[in-house]
Amino acid sequence: MTTALELSVKLHYLRQKLATLNLDAMLLTFLPDARWLTKFSGSNGTVLLTRDNAWLFTDFRYQEQVKTEVENAEPVITSDGYVAEMKSGKFSFGTRVGFQADKLAFATVEKMKEELPDIEFVPVTMFCEEFVAVKDSDELEKMRKAVAITDKVFEKILEMISPNVTERDVAAEISYWNKRFGAEKDSFDPIVASGPRGAFPHARATDNFIQNNSLLVIDMGCMVSGYCSDQTRTVAVGKISDEARAVYNLVLEAHLLGIRSAKAGMTGRELDAIAREFLTANGYGEAFGHSLGHAVGLQVHELPTIGRKGEMKIPVGAVITIEPGVYLPGKFGVRIEDMVLITERGAEPLPKAKKELIEL
Amino acid sequence: MTTALELSVKLHYLRQKLATLNLDAMLLTFLPDARWLTKFSGSNGTVLLTRDNAWLFTDFRYQEQVKTEVENAEPVITSDGYVAEMKSGKFSFGTRVGFQADKLAFATVEKMKEELPDIEFVPVTMFCEEFVAVKDSDELEKMRKAVAITDKVFEKILEMISPNVTERDVAAEISYWNKRFGAEKDSFDPIVASGPRGAFPHARATDNFIQNNSLLVIDMGCMVSGYCSDQTRTVAVGKISDEARAVYNLVLEAHLLGIRSAKAGMTGRELDAIAREFLTANGYGEAFGHSLGHAVGLQVHELPTIGRKGEMKIPVGAVITIEPGVYLPGKFGVRIEDMVLITERGAEPLPKAKKELIEL
Repeated sequence: MTTALELSVKLHYLRQKLATLNLDAMLLTFLPDARWLTKFSGSNGTVLLTRDNAWLFTDFRYQEQVKTEVENAEPVITSDGYVAEMKSGKFSFGTRVGFQADKLAFATVEKMKEELPDIEFVPVTMFCEEFVAVKDSDELEKMRKAVAITDKVFEKILEMISPNVTERDVAAEISYWNKRFGAEKDSFDPIVASGPRGAFPHARATDNFIQNNSLLVIDMGCMVSGYCSDQTRTVAVGKISDEARAVYNLVLEAHLLGIRSAKAGMTGRELDAIAREFLTANGYGEAFGHSLGHAVGLQVHELPTIGRKGEMKIPVGAVITIEPGVYLPGKFGVRIEDMVLITERGAEPLPKAKKELIEL
Repeated sequence: MTTALELSVKLHYLRQKLATLNLDAMLLTFLPDARWLTKFSGSNGTVLLTRDNAWLFTDFRYQEQVKTEVENAEPVITSDGYVAEMKSGKFSFGTRVGFQADKLAFATVEKMKEELPDIEFVPVTMFCEEFVAVKDSDELEKMRKAVAITDKVFEKILEMISPNVTERDVAAEISYWNKRFGAEKDSFDPIVASGPRGAFPHARATDNFIQNNSLLVIDMGCMVSGYCSDQTRTVAVGKISDEARAVYNLVLEAHLLGIRSAKAGMTGRELDAIAREFLTANGYGEAFGHSLGHAVGLQVHELPTIGRKGEMKIPVGAVITIEPGVYLPGKFGVRIEDMVLITERGAEPLPKAKKELIEL
């Protein structure tokens, strides 16, 4: 399967990039990138990648864990940090070393330069992103598990939604069942937004009771072996207005259009524009105040961005969200979101949750 | 009460610091610091503080929220970010502008310098930390609420702990009751570590069942209006060995000694040393592999650090943890942790949870 970017392949591509950038080595200080390459799941780890070697620097807490977990790099336990190890003379990494300029703090870079004055530190951005975007079979398996749990949790919480519970009660239940069904944790704080609060795309769950005769937006996800799910459904509680029903059906159309239109090789901007133009033609362009989607992986928001600023092409093997929304201040909001896998044939939705309006 | 560092006082101290550092302005890009100063709880906000003004730059999502929430700064809604606003000529902020060098990415700093070539950007560390460490009455009220919820949740989960449930089941219950009792969310992923897994200070909750006849370490906390709690208890499930009981009592002694010894004006290193020397004198110094504690606030780990590298003095009004632990690989771990408020008279523990060994 062409979506498989296997572990050794990761190293191969990164080393090609080292050569392209004329670097002797690259420091991966951003933890999700270090984890992506080595599978190390600890809270402290930096990879030093050279043309011939790769080391993962971490601390004594992970002494046992690295033995079974780490691939693609040789683990080094240190109490002094990676800069001290680089000074020690024990590791050979040349003189031109790239660092993740958009992730590493200014003061840390200054300190590295001071401690290692003979090294030329080169600011690099987007070193891993194009490779991280392509999920291999192992990563896909974890993401499918996360999505399956999210489907199950959604089924479960439908049972308890009523005007007698608060948004926060529902959020509590989501977090609870995520763990009970085997996830490590939420991939982000669940959004449970009832009635007019649904018009705030990033509403936090409040102590307000779920409104009767209104729409309820539920945006939720979980994490399995570090990999995230992210899924939104909007459901009707009681009787809703004709306008709410019409907007729901329109957003559903935009969502299905987004899925049908998604093709490898398009930019995120192009895909976003298709759904946006549809909503605009139907009079709701202004009410769609965010991007159509984003890639998902070890981070819940990854590149490519599926939005107006999304110039990166969507590769085969990417997992992206398709999540159009319409937000009418003072009234309600509707968002419908699936994670889809981009294949050579198009986009395959990963969740099974029903998309026709659920009326509770 | 001398612990009150009221809002206007925050501005006063920060402006004194501007003068000391000979800065015209300071950029607070680190969100917890921006929130600390302005109470803004959104996910995107940067403060530009001058000798005479303070602006909070955020985006359209928070248009309504800033009106009721923000103090100490004038909110500015922008879709282009704070650098574009600084270029616009609409704001007067002099020519010497500090930035948080240990929090801001290298590439972001380079871009600021490029976009605003006439500004002298000055790397600054520790601009807010000494003031953030002193909690005012409003902050203390929020932290007391968070601690009270944690006490309640701990009581609640004691009912369900048995060898018939997994570590993850207990963790799920903690997250659930945090929200049900009114917290926004967990302040960190709960640690629930049974038997030999208790010997890993940062163990994640697993699918393993709680072991009978062994100790169980539970480290948990929640968030109220952004402010964190952090609390650990170790309980006995079934019958435990004499060694386990002896170690429990020793850690409890070290914990109480830490609380009795904590005085404003000490450094974190000095306080850490008292508990460490006690455990060392009793043969368990090596088994205490982490710091005695840390300050808590909008972040679960703040300065001052109460550990071997803690050179910062502990001020009146600080809230710190006292959490000695003994970890015996292959056997068990014990940790007992309270948050305490440093007053002029010593340290006042905030939780009510019992400290004598609970046997389930």
